[in-house]
Amino acid sequence: MSDTRILSLDEIEELSFRALVAAGTSEANARPLARATAATEADGIASHGLAYIPIYCEHVQCGKVDGTASPLLSRPKPGVIAVDAATGFAHPAIDLGFASLVPAARAQGVAVLAIRNSYNCGVLGYHTRRLAEAGLLGLGFTNAPASIAPSGGATPVVGTNPFSIAAPGPGGEAAILIDQSASTIAKSEVMKHAREGRPIPEGWALAPDGSPTTDPEVGLKGSMAPSGGYKGVGVALMVEIMAAALTGASLGINASPFSGTLGGPPRTGQCFIAIDPASTAAGAFDAAIAELAGAVHAQGGARLPGDGRRAKRAAAGRAGVAVSEATLARIEALL
Amino acid sequence: MSDTRILSLDEIEELSFRALVAAGTSEANARPLARATAATEADGIASHGLAYIPIYCEHVQCGKVDGTASPLLSRPKPGVIAVDAATGFAHPAIDLGFASLVPAARAQGVAVLAIRNSYNCGVLGYHTRRLAEAGLLGLGFTNAPASIAPSGGATPVVGTNPFSIAAPGPGGEAAILIDQSASTIAKSEVMKHAREGRPIPEGWALAPDGSPTTDPEVGLKGSMAPSGGYKGVGVALMVEIMAAALTGASLGINASPFSGTLGGPPRTGQCFIAIDPASTAAGAFDAAIAELAGAVHAQGGARLPGDGRRAKRAAAGRAGVAVSEATLARIEALL
Repeated sequence: MSDTRILSLDEIEELSFRALVAAGTSEANARPLARATAATEADGIASHGLAYIPIYCEHVQCGKVDGTASPLLSRPKPGVIAVDAATGFAHPAIDLGFASLVPAARAQGVAVLAIRNSYNCGVLGYHTRRLAEAGLLGLGFTNAPASIAPSGGATPVVGTNPFSIAAPGPGGEAAILIDQSASTIAKSEVMKHAREGRPIPEGWALAPDGSPTTDPEVGLKGSMAPSGGYKGVGVALMVEIMAAALTGASLGINASPFSGTLGGPPRTGQCFIAIDPASTAAGAFDAAIAELAGAVHAQGGARLPGDGRRAKRAAAGRAGVAVSEATLARIEALL
Repeated sequence: MSDTRILSLDEIEELSFRALVAAGTSEANARPLARATAATEADGIASHGLAYIPIYCEHVQCGKVDGTASPLLSRPKPGVIAVDAATGFAHPAIDLGFASLVPAARAQGVAVLAIRNSYNCGVLGYHTRRLAEAGLLGLGFTNAPASIAPSGGATPVVGTNPFSIAAPGPGGEAAILIDQSASTIAKSEVMKHAREGRPIPEGWALAPDGSPTTDPEVGLKGSMAPSGGYKGVGVALMVEIMAAALTGASLGINASPFSGTLGGPPRTGQCFIAIDPASTAAGAFDAAIAELAGAVHAQGGARLPGDGRRAKRAAAGRAGVAVSEATLARIEALL
């Protein structure tokens, strides 16, 4: 495409950092978010990369995020790290927590990081992958404003709430990386169809009375369809329990929107569990992961979750990423 | 129905116990399995209650399960309990592990139980519910012989692999109990249709080449359809990593069948994570769970996972359970 420009990962990180700081984010808080933005572009997830920088900047300026917040860590038990994100960005709170979570998991065999008063953490698998790169199995949960209705109901009670699991490989990489939301499709896709005035396929969203709809505007007033029906609701509830109830964060029914400028801080949460597989599997973990991955890759055309991101990441490290000129223009206007 | 008989929960437990012991199970191993069988009938899950007792007895007699095994516990780290089920029943291995898991989770804030060389653990939510009744948040994972194919492939690599989460309520009960498999429908339903010569709905199972089928025999030679497509595969992979790779148990691709007498012990695994919510949520957990449950129950007709089992359990405690006379005849013939 002619309306893109190739940027290196370092250039993406620096551009993100400068824009965030220009909007009033402290350097200490801007750095981890800028780093995650570059990694997300490297993974090929443009919807959550640079395109989010103008939104983050707007949220600092309207007070939905405190750009100068200092997250506060406590250690209530040997295996528990609790971080109050203090209505700042999730990324510095996660960084602060991981610095204690990783050694705690190595010492105890397992440790939990519970983050409250937080914000949208971007791509959840970016964070669990870092645990795998530290040689730990990482489980992650993050909640969002309510958009999925319970079975038998029509009013949203839980968000599209993703979970993620990253399994470490022997070479310091994530051998398997699962990162999936509880809805059939991302809410941003329904919003995109609404902006473009196009109908949505049946099965993406439901009308306010719970009936199927192909009108994206009606779907946005109703609820997102859970993946696999009641089992998608179950996944969203699991994540809500882990990321909000277990951390002391806001439930999705009480959280302000992640989009727009209204409502103040969402105060949602994240929960991560890190486990040392060397302590649980009696030396058998690496071989099992390799055999499982091998059984998938032996089938022509079959793939594991995370394969696509890994291939894109390797290419982006060598050749950079093609970024939309329109997105770059919006960010450069903020500097 | 005239072909049922009302039994009290104690009668169900004793009948199960006597049949298991008559088949060669030690009393120490028969008791937890008999107790779980009564609880499963109380929950209204007849498919996994007394109907399984003749199968368990046959598996002791053919050597698929060692009825006199002694599970072996080790404590490699303060937060990790590992149990080798020694190809015995899963239930005594879980009991042995929980006796250490519960105090470890209270002391550390979080602990993991990894069980290998194990067997079908019956209803997974029976076990996580016990953690919730001890005031802990319980997460559970158990793997099964491979029956679901990866995205883009047609050969099974993971089982119908359920996960479960049980959130404790303030009164010592499980306020929310999620227990769901990764497939659209239980494999036993496809087997039942095959026995009865009835077609299955499209979307339940796939032919060996990965195409849709309504023939249950073809589906049983092919694979089970994952719930929600690739997201169901993701759930099954998460469970496989937790229950098999992380514990040192057999992967589903190497496990012998749970049904029939061939192949020796399946050597599959279970993993449980117990977390003390008092240590992670700064006192906010009970109110959050109550508010989340309240938001569901405020909608007429809406329900939470676990509501149905709880209602049936209350009724069964008062009035007993109607059990199939045919099932009772099969069990009484074993005494």
